[in-house]
Amino acid sequence: MISVLKIGHRPERDKRITTHCALVARAFGCSEFVYTGKRDPALEESVAGVTERWGGEFRVRYSNSWRREISNFPGLRVHLTMYGVPFESELRRLKGNVLFVVGGEKVPREVFELADLNLSVTNQPHSEVGALAVVLYAVKGTEHEFPNAKLRIVPSPKGKVVRPAEGSRSREAEGSR
Amino acid sequence: MISVLKIGHRPERDKRITTHCALVARAFGCSEFVYTGKRDPALEESVAGVTERWGGEFRVRYSNSWRREISNFPGLRVHLTMYGVPFESELRRLKGNVLFVVGGEKVPREVFELADLNLSVTNQPHSEVGALAVVLYAVKGTEHEFPNAKLRIVPSPKGKVVRPAEGSRSREAEGSR
Repeated sequence: MISVLKIGHRPERDKRITTHCALVARAFGCSEFVYTGKRDPALEESVAGVTERWGGEFRVRYSNSWRREISNFPGLRVHLTMYGVPFESELRRLKGNVLFVVGGEKVPREVFELADLNLSVTNQPHSEVGALAVVLYAVKGTEHEFPNAKLRIVPSPKGKVVRPAEGSRSREAEGSR
Repeated sequence: MISVLKIGHRPERDKRITTHCALVARAFGCSEFVYTGKRDPALEESVAGVTERWGGEFRVRYSNSWRREISNFPGLRVHLTMYGVPFESELRRLKGNVLFVVGGEKVPREVFELADLNLSVTNQPHSEVGALAVVLYAVKGTEHEFPNAKLRIVPSPKGKVVRPAEGSRSREAEGSR
């Protein structure tokens, strides 16, 4: 089971970045996305809506304490940070229950200390969305099952082909042209 | 040479997503980031400031025509889209001059047609930042040179270690604790 914890969400400023983190977690097969900071029902509804249409058993949860989430996680706690050691060097350890912690601009020092590993995806400033996507891709690849989807994409070289998922009773075809 | 083209920037709404796309492009060794939509000097200054401090010869450029950028690009034009074929199947073709095109929510049909390849990073909705990061990682890895940096990070298992880069006359140590 892989979980992602995003620290310090600010609805006014971070809405899309936090949403992208959650959707990356879902697309690469994580079980859960937890966020701290300010609670944002619109964020939760947006991600739940994606799961409703595209399937899977992904959960989004607000927590008022990153400290408790990290401390109580029953597995390896991995903080992704540009200051850490290259993630490739620890890739073999990223198995079983893993919590990936991503922050924004100001991550408290205690996060570095509570984490079992502080890992970097390059030592350049870029994006928590990008860093999370790369590590999840390296750990889990791109092939994941999304049971109970209403929609599925038929990969296409030139257009958009969206079908009701097999076994779905929905005739909705969002995004098709 | 690898370039990234982001279509349809809206400064109010997309500032951080577009910035993250640009910084991912830089961190993974691309030469140039081009964006269309509404011009945003603050975005350009923000990315230029990162390059000024952290090195490299990365350029950010505004264009008023994605059509012209794609049509005139002297190399392979690759549109990243959840509707495309899995990028892994075409990974060997992503060599030499490549333009990666990323959009937002509504990408014009013509982009799909102008692109030589429409490639997906999973067929699930997630993030142009995440998709770009994964493909660039798969194509270029994480080891890149950033000449003329003022700062460099010494990878650390527990904290933040930032040093003036060798050969730099700067004594600035932004982000150190």
